[in-house]
Amino acid sequence: MDVEFIIIGNEILIGKTLDSNSNWMAKRVTKYGHRVRRVTTIGDDLDIISDMIKDVLSRNPDLIITSGGMGPTFDDMTLEGIAKGLNRELKLDEHAYNMIKTSYEKAHRIGLLKLEGMTKERKKMAYLPEGSVPLPNTRGTAPGVKIKQGETTIFILPGVPAEMKAMFLNVITPILKEKAGKFIEKGFLFEGIGESQIAPYVSKLEHKYPQLWIKTHPRIGLSVEVELSITSFNVDNGEELTDKALMDIKKIILTLNGKIKNRK
Amino acid sequence: MDVEFIIIGNEILIGKTLDSNSNWMAKRVTKYGHRVRRVTTIGDDLDIISDMIKDVLSRNPDLIITSGGMGPTFDDMTLEGIAKGLNRELKLDEHAYNMIKTSYEKAHRIGLLKLEGMTKERKKMAYLPEGSVPLPNTRGTAPGVKIKQGETTIFILPGVPAEMKAMFLNVITPILKEKAGKFIEKGFLFEGIGESQIAPYVSKLEHKYPQLWIKTHPRIGLSVEVELSITSFNVDNGEELTDKALMDIKKIILTLNGKIKNRK
Repeated sequence: MDVEFIIIGNEILIGKTLDSNSNWMAKRVTKYGHRVRRVTTIGDDLDIISDMIKDVLSRNPDLIITSGGMGPTFDDMTLEGIAKGLNRELKLDEHAYNMIKTSYEKAHRIGLLKLEGMTKERKKMAYLPEGSVPLPNTRGTAPGVKIKQGETTIFILPGVPAEMKAMFLNVITPILKEKAGKFIEKGFLFEGIGESQIAPYVSKLEHKYPQLWIKTHPRIGLSVEVELSITSFNVDNGEELTDKALMDIKKIILTLNGKIKNRK
Repeated sequence: MDVEFIIIGNEILIGKTLDSNSNWMAKRVTKYGHRVRRVTTIGDDLDIISDMIKDVLSRNPDLIITSGGMGPTFDDMTLEGIAKGLNRELKLDEHAYNMIKTSYEKAHRIGLLKLEGMTKERKKMAYLPEGSVPLPNTRGTAPGVKIKQGETTIFILPGVPAEMKAMFLNVITPILKEKAGKFIEKGFLFEGIGESQIAPYVSKLEHKYPQLWIKTHPRIGLSVEVELSITSFNVDNGEELTDKALMDIKKIILTLNGKIKNRK
C-alpha cells in the first residue's frame, strides 16, 4: 500500500517540538512492506489543512494518516479542516460523544480532573466529518477518526505520542499486517574507502540487482565511516538477493583494502 | 520571511533515519522572527523532487531550504531534480569543481581517503543548475547551492547534519539576521486543571490579545500536566503583551485552584 502522513501543529513548525511521530509510524508502515511516499508538516490553519487533504487525495494513496490538532481548544482544527477539504459536514457523532463523556467521567471520578460534565469544548471533539467512524482513545480523551474517501482510507490520530501510538497499534497495525508485503533491510559499516570510491561499484551492483535499492551514507566520526544499506520492497526472493549483493559488495570492499565493521 | 523546507531521502521515509534537520533549522528560522510554513519529506526520486520544487515555488515563499541527496552516488539526485523543476540545465560549475577537488586532495593528503583525483562520481557533485552559486562545505565534500528563482531564494544543503548545520550557520543565518523580525515564546506548566477546563478562558484571552497565539498542550505523566505557551511573530510590543497575557491566565488558573509550575 502507498501511505502519506500529514503532521499538523504550529509547535512543530516553530521548532518547539521535534516530530518523532512520523518516524515511529514510518518504521511500522515499512516493516509490513508498505511505502511511505511523503510526509508533510503544516500548521493549525483551517484552509491549509483543507487544501492539504485535497492535495494528498489527488495522489490516490491507499492510506492517509494525520496526527495532531484533535484537542478541545479553539486552535485544534484538524477535523474541521478535513471536513472542509472533503466537502462533508461536521456532525455530532453519538459514539464519539459517549467515548468522550465516559473518559471525562472517569477522569473526574479518580480525581484527575476537577471539572465535571460535558462542556462546549469537550463536546467539540465529538463533531466529526459525516461518514466518520470514531476510534477509541485509550490514553487520552479525543477520539481518533477513520473515514473512507474513494479508494483512500484516512486515519485522523491525536498528536500526543502516547495517544497516537496506542491508536495506531490498535487500529492501523492490523490493516498493515493483513495486507502485508515484504520489506528487507540489511547493511554494514565500512571504513578506509570513501563513498565516492565505492560509488561506481554500487552502480554496477544496482544494475546486477535491479530489484534492490543499494545506498551509502557517510557518517562523520573520528574515522571516515560509511554505512551501506540494501533494501527491497515486496521482492519474492528479496532476502536471498540481498544476501548475495551483500557478499558481492563486501568482496569489493576487501579487495580495495577497506575495513568492514558491524553496524551499531 | 516565509520559509519552506524540503527534506529529501528514502532513509527518512522508511523510518531508518529520524529527520532532526528540520527541527534544528525551524528553531533558527523562528528565532529571527521568520515563519516556517511547511516541511515536506520526499524520497530520492527525480520526478518527485522536480514536481515538489515547482509546487513549493507556486506558494511564493521567500526562502526554500532543501536538505539531502547531494552526495556522489547515483541515487543522490537532488540537483538534477531541482534543475528539471526549474527548467534549467545542469552545468559543470568551475568553482564547485575546485571546491570538491581541493577537499578530496586534502582528504587524500591527510590519509582519510585512499583514492586520489577527480572521478566521475566526484565530478558529478560539481554539476549545478544554471545560475547557481556554489556554497563551500566546511565539513564534507558536496558543495551546497544557492539559486534565485523569481522572488524566491533556494538553498540546497547536504543531509548530513554536521555539514548542513555548518553551511546553514555560515550562509543562511546572516540572511535571517539581516531581515530579522521579532519572535516571542513564553510559557509555563500547570496541573490540577485539564486542557478542556481552561479552554474557554484561553479563547477569551485570544480575543483580548489577537496578536498573540495562545496554546495548551497536554503532557502525559504521573499527574495531569498541561503546558501553556504564548507566541507572537513581529508584534511591536509583543513581549509586553505576552507578559500581560501570562499574568491574566495565571490568575485564572489560581482562581480555579490549579497549580502553576515552572517549565523544564
